[in-house]
Amino acid sequence: MVIPFHVTEMLRRVMARYDAEKTPQKMAPNDDAFSLLRPMRKISQATVEKYWARLRPTACAADQAELADPVTMAQAEQYSANIENFIGTVKLPVGIIGPLRLTGMNANGDYHVPLATSEAALVASYARGAAAATKAGGISTAVLYEGVIRTPAFVMKDLLSAGQFVEWVVRNVEDLQAAAEATTRHGKLVSLEPFIDNNIAFLICRYTTGDAAGQNMVTIATDALCQRIAEACPVPIEAWYIEGNFSGDKKASALGMVTGRGRKVSASVILPREVVEQVLGTTVEDMLAYGRVANLGSLLSGQLGAQAHYANGLAALYIATGQDAACVAESAMGVTRMEPRGEDLYVSVTMPNILVGSVGGGTGLPSQSAALNILGLKGAGHGAALAEIAAATCLCGEISIVAAISAGDFTRAHENLARHR
Amino acid sequence: MVIPFHVTEMLRRVMARYDAEKTPQKMAPNDDAFSLLRPMRKISQATVEKYWARLRPTACAADQAELADPVTMAQAEQYSANIENFIGTVKLPVGIIGPLRLTGMNANGDYHVPLATSEAALVASYARGAAAATKAGGISTAVLYEGVIRTPAFVMKDLLSAGQFVEWVVRNVEDLQAAAEATTRHGKLVSLEPFIDNNIAFLICRYTTGDAAGQNMVTIATDALCQRIAEACPVPIEAWYIEGNFSGDKKASALGMVTGRGRKVSASVILPREVVEQVLGTTVEDMLAYGRVANLGSLLSGQLGAQAHYANGLAALYIATGQDAACVAESAMGVTRMEPRGEDLYVSVTMPNILVGSVGGGTGLPSQSAALNILGLKGAGHGAALAEIAAATCLCGEISIVAAISAGDFTRAHENLARHR
Amino acid sequence: MVIPFHVTEMLRRVMARYDAEKTPQKMAPNDDAFSLLRPMRKISQATVEKYWARLRPTACAADQAELADPVTMAQAEQYSANIENFIGTVKLPVGIIGPLRLTGMNANGDYHVPLATSEAALVASYARGAAAATKAGGISTAVLYEGVIRTPAFVMKDLLSAGQFVEWVVRNVEDLQAAAEATTRHGKLVSLEPFIDNNIAFLICRYTTGDAAGQNMVTIATDALCQRIAEACPVPIEAWYIEGNFSGDKKASALGMVTGRGRKVSASVILPREVVEQVLGTTVEDMLAYGRVANLGSLLSGQLGAQAHYANGLAALYIATGQDAACVAESAMGVTRMEPRGEDLYVSVTMPNILVGSVGGGTGLPSQSAALNILGLKGAGHGAALAEIAAATCLCGEISIVAAISAGDFTRAHENLARHR
Amino acid sequence: MVIPFHVTEMLRRVMARYDAEKTPQKMAPNDDAFSLLRPMRKISQATVEKYWARLRPTACAADQAELADPVTMAQAEQYSANIENFIGTVKLPVGIIGPLRLTGMNANGDYHVPLATSEAALVASYARGAAAATKAGGISTAVLYEGVIRTPAFVMKDLLSAGQFVEWVVRNVEDLQAAAEATTRHGKLVSLEPFIDNNIAFLICRYTTGDAAGQNMVTIATDALCQRIAEACPVPIEAWYIEGNFSGDKKASALGMVTGRGRKVSASVILPREVVEQVLGTTVEDMLAYGRVANLGSLLSGQLGAQAHYANGLAALYIATGQDAACVAESAMGVTRMEPRGEDLYVSVTMPNILVGSVGGGTGLPSQSAALNILGLKGAGHGAALAEIAAATCLCGEISIVAAISAGDFTRAHENLARHR
Repeated sequence: MVIPFHVTEMLRRVMARYDAEKTPQKMAPNDDAFSLLRPMRKISQATVEKYWARLRPTACAADQAELADPVTMAQAEQYSANIENFIGTVKLPVGIIGPLRLTGMNANGDYHVPLATSEAALVASYARGAAAATKAGGISTAVLYEGVIRTPAFVMKDLLSAGQFVEWVVRNVEDLQAAAEATTRHGKLVSLEPFIDNNIAFLICRYTTGDAAGQNMVTIATDALCQRIAEACPVPIEAWYIEGNFSGDKKASALGMVTGRGRKVSASVILPREVVEQVLGTTVEDMLAYGRVANLGSLLSGQLGAQAHYANGLAALYIATGQDAACVAESAMGVTRMEPRGEDLYVSVTMPNILVGSVGGGTGLPSQSAALNILGLKGAGHGAALAEIAAATCLCGEISIVAAISAGDFTRAHENLARHR
Repeated sequence: MVIPFHVTEMLRRVMARYDAEKTPQKMAPNDDAFSLLRPMRKISQATVEKYWARLRPTACAADQAELADPVTMAQAEQYSANIENFIGTVKLPVGIIGPLRLTGMNANGDYHVPLATSEAALVASYARGAAAATKAGGISTAVLYEGVIRTPAFVMKDLLSAGQFVEWVVRNVEDLQAAAEATTRHGKLVSLEPFIDNNIAFLICRYTTGDAAGQNMVTIATDALCQRIAEACPVPIEAWYIEGNFSGDKKASALGMVTGRGRKVSASVILPREVVEQVLGTTVEDMLAYGRVANLGSLLSGQLGAQAHYANGLAALYIATGQDAACVAESAMGVTRMEPRGEDLYVSVTMPNILVGSVGGGTGLPSQSAALNILGLKGAGHGAALAEIAAATCLCGEISIVAAISAGDFTRAHENLARHR
Repeated sequence: MVIPFHVTEMLRRVMARYDAEKTPQKMAPNDDAFSLLRPMRKISQATVEKYWARLRPTACAADQAELADPVTMAQAEQYSANIENFIGTVKLPVGIIGPLRLTGMNANGDYHVPLATSEAALVASYARGAAAATKAGGISTAVLYEGVIRTPAFVMKDLLSAGQFVEWVVRNVEDLQAAAEATTRHGKLVSLEPFIDNNIAFLICRYTTGDAAGQNMVTIATDALCQRIAEACPVPIEAWYIEGNFSGDKKASALGMVTGRGRKVSASVILPREVVEQVLGTTVEDMLAYGRVANLGSLLSGQLGAQAHYANGLAALYIATGQDAACVAESAMGVTRMEPRGEDLYVSVTMPNILVGSVGGGTGLPSQSAALNILGLKGAGHGAALAEIAAATCLCGEISIVAAISAGDFTRAHENLARHR
Repeated sequence: MVIPFHVTEMLRRVMARYDAEKTPQKMAPNDDAFSLLRPMRKISQATVEKYWARLRPTACAADQAELADPVTMAQAEQYSANIENFIGTVKLPVGIIGPLRLTGMNANGDYHVPLATSEAALVASYARGAAAATKAGGISTAVLYEGVIRTPAFVMKDLLSAGQFVEWVVRNVEDLQAAAEATTRHGKLVSLEPFIDNNIAFLICRYTTGDAAGQNMVTIATDALCQRIAEACPVPIEAWYIEGNFSGDKKASALGMVTGRGRKVSASVILPREVVEQVLGTTVEDMLAYGRVANLGSLLSGQLGAQAHYANGLAALYIATGQDAACVAESAMGVTRMEPRGEDLYVSVTMPNILVGSVGGGTGLPSQSAALNILGLKGAGHGAALAEIAAATCLCGEISIVAAISAGDFTRAHENLARHR
């Protein structure tokens, strides 16, 4: 049979739910009456109650009590700049690892890192990596680059007009830069690079964004820049869009790997042989041997970069510290390298797309703000250090998972910690 | 000057922090004494207190009160299977959208979808997309495929041995399947495909995982399968690893786009012209025009698939319902299509890597469990429906962002909702 | 200045050619009269003369003499199944390397490999790699997989119809397979895998193609399969296409890396330390050190796989032996691995997309056929051996270039050999 | 059975050739005596004879006569700067298409394009596309960007040293630029961009290369630049490599898609409805409908960009005109777009990596030089025009194949033209 079994098996399962008469009916659009929730931005006890009243058919009072608990309701207004249609809060457990020693350009000292996750074994695994790194004298880190891009697109009649458009933009760039930078105290336009595909011109606008992740900042600045073009440019523009879906915002892309978005950070440590053996329960040679296989796996499966599980550490840190968890999609890229250094093991991560802020976003929310305080990195002046913490944390995760898989411990660790539920 | 300005500017900023004497010193490994946190899995008031005592240098009592609030502490033990080194919970605000009408194979009816995020405007934007879709008669969905893969790697001496190894595996596959399936009530091995790169053989093991996301399930099953091979296979194996970093677990990969991992779901809706105009404030033509530019942006920036911001909806839904937020890295891939249908607009998303469960993981935690109740999808029998909800939610987000950008509303919406902080 | 210099410099160069009045005029469509060449498939002295008469404005008699030389014209009719609008032949110089020893499953013995190229140093470089490999006892090779895919696409009204369509296809697969295989003596359908994106179903049809590269064979077979579906399937099909641009035909794709297209071959050799030093003028350690950097370069630049220059060897071999040179675009992918083996160096290439035939295509043309005779691989029964030769040749190229770059010889070699023109 | 049939079938075929005793023996390295061909760069009748004498076991006198024919031997010395170990020439048939009208920035007028291929139907298909384009008033083209990159890599001790290294390079860039440009009359360094991954710094060096493809030119210039760094930079360098395998030389890469390598060209045409119907035998709507499916296929299969078969036109043109056919691997990338323009059809290709020269490489070989004369683009001053011809030719190929597939003609065309062999 040339149809693979997993296909026929899937089909069998689908057909079990299929009824020649009812299924088409059930899948047709239907115009039954419905009543939309009223959007509400200002949060009060009353608005929350109203929403929950609408959720009754499925959710009960106990459910409401879990999300709209007294602590949450007491602070409810504090959430109003970060959410619409508020019905309460979801609580993610936070575990702590450390001290994690960083000998970085920006983060320098011993840190305790809060990680929010519901995946058993994750915190334990990162803690083990941190223990190894700290015993080795700490993780060396540096922000290598920073710049958040927004890439508006301008559609012209034809190739010639696109060329004329770009010529005008380049000639008027100082004016455009001024328009962009007038919208923000912290954002600076550091590069504007036109990119033409026939009649469509993308403008790759890169900004430094101070200590904020800066996604809104660059949107607003770029909007002003585009508005200025739209007003002043004599070349007829058929349409323009604030984002040509080119910047890699909220998604993994090769462009992000190559040019970076947000902060690009390298973090590395040399693990002495005895630390590998005693803390990680494996050997330098075994970790290197697995590293070769893991690199091959990355290449064969078409990953962007090559790494094991940055997403775990990033998601946990982003959630705990009020970052945008959706940015994990673009941040979880980069390259983990392992190399012998004499008898010891050099491990490095370089992550081109770390999007974190020590101000803005969700960093001011009550519990997130507290988590930043644990790191000592709340508020202005800490954006770069926070990015280095993110990379160093991911390095700990890489060290630990590589050790676990090369030692054959990986399954056992997950089994022990997660199976008790 | 052939060095681009953004590079020299970055360098200038780095050099401002550089001191020829102190920086090298500060970046050298240091062996100052330190004291690791003691790992603790069992959660009690006392363990939490002990950790916080250690965090004092940076965090204060008020910070502790935010994470280790009374409600959290009263439920603290419930978190013990999902976290280690527990110090409290982080609270993410949850907004609600709906009703979102689905006319799906598995999810059929009107749903209210809880979204946890701290990004202003996100909930409002998804709510608008949901309103349009529901007015249009609902979103048609189906799980097209399901299968979570684990890809152990076996290293042999040479190419010939790798061939002999594969031959043995194929010949003994029933025995191996039995070993794998003995570890799980819900997991079924539906495909085993060997993949050789010279002396290394990866085994692509695909499983259906019932209503769970199934990541641990497939790890444990595959470990048993590998152990069975290691015991019984006469071809000498130099090393084997439970995961060859090939499966795409927790990262975007081309393999994931092609073969899918978790559940693959299509969701689509035909938006009548008047819905586009009245609910979304734009036109079918303008959305199609922007769709062409956005597709170009996807291609030029080397995304996997082509879409606008699945990550936003996924992260918000995953966090609210106790899914693994790190999986956003692999789930936020797929293709959004827009096509004219007469005067109306067809919009479709197909997402090959949705990793959700209605049981297991964080779904049993107090507030997450309540969020699943809002959907009416808690517990056994709801995994496929939940995956369809995820895809339908992302479709709402795609509709809304495309409308906003094509109408020129995007920046304004973010500005209004987010700038008040 | 935030515009990078290379952009302003490019613009300066463009503007130097730009005339505000004349350029728009010159770039507008024009409807001057023209007279198309008459298409001619049957080749004769007269048809060739007629074409050349039309080329007179730019080309002279001497040019005609170079392409339509006496030897070519004497054999002109032999080209008629491979070209239309024939005006002569272009002559590429062929260099020979060897003996290249293979200890392969299919190619076993000492071979001389003809390489057609105009890039100086290429043949010398591959010859050096071959010398090293042969001195090391030969290259071990095996065809790991074979299968050429064609991926027709069927467009249905909606998701439900697409599901019904696939269900019908799976149920009728034997009939469809018979239709496909009836068109060919050598092609066998070995897998048919449906792939749905909402209302569009691709059918991934894989064939073995005997000793031919098989591109036409699979097109014709798949066309029959599709025609059969179009006749017999009761689910309404809105449109179908013989190729949904999914198969990776003539282009690099992640799908090709993962699933292979054509023949997948591994080739490897263990180079003893003294061979590396004496033949390649470098050391095992230096080659490994560069290998780590080269692997990093592959990852950072977003290549498909990781290798140095398969395209050079493939293009030269494909052209010399009558293969389709355009397939270099899809064949030049794969992974080169280097690892220490004690004191020695293990080097491996695995190439998933080798498209060669010992019959069909251009293999029967006079000089190409002679080149296949040099290899002893002309005609039926040699397809797999030829694929192994292709991979082994690429391995020689990888060995040589890595050695040259790690020894610092690379530039000098090219300088010496190419600068004399 | 969970093993897919195509795997078991492949295994069956392999096992048919497997003999438990003989196969391992045959695949072991062997040290039988052998005698390497002596490398010879200077070509003479005698050297050619000597090589052929060595090829006798497999090749006969008739084979020699095909490669080392009298015409070839009379011109043999002319090949000596382009090949080593010369044994004759391989002859590829050349077909001609045209007139192809270009209304380009650089190529402006009616051209006849020589295409060398052995794939039946290729020339006919491109001729049809050219007829449609010319009837539509010609193809608008422009070189949008040019720049060939070389990316040497420098390995330092650690992250800090890498930073210091880059700081030194940026400070001394004028000196380095002078060193690079001193090696070449035509090459200009237009950008130098450092790229750090922890302790490894890549330098992305971009050059304009006059009318040459310029691969050797940039290697030699960059080598001088690197030598200058190695001499003068006070930061200790552990190793450096002329190419860090990052530039995309001879391979498809995301970097190439994003930044371009060689010349980036857009080419487009608006095909009037009647041209589509009369010349191409299909309709605007049908071509657009297929375009949507083809774009989806590109995305789902993980291509770089989205196009149908650039490689066919490029390989044929590159071979005919003495370009480096191996560069097809990197050149065959880009995006084909089709859009409605009122009742008509807009078709565009943008190709970022066209590597052609009107001087250098194989352009001076006898028949290749004649082919360039047909185009009227031989020698200095024609590099950009030749690049525009390449893109316009690919556009013709895209038009024709899309028309053929959407009309259902594709298989028939190939069947008719290729099956007569």
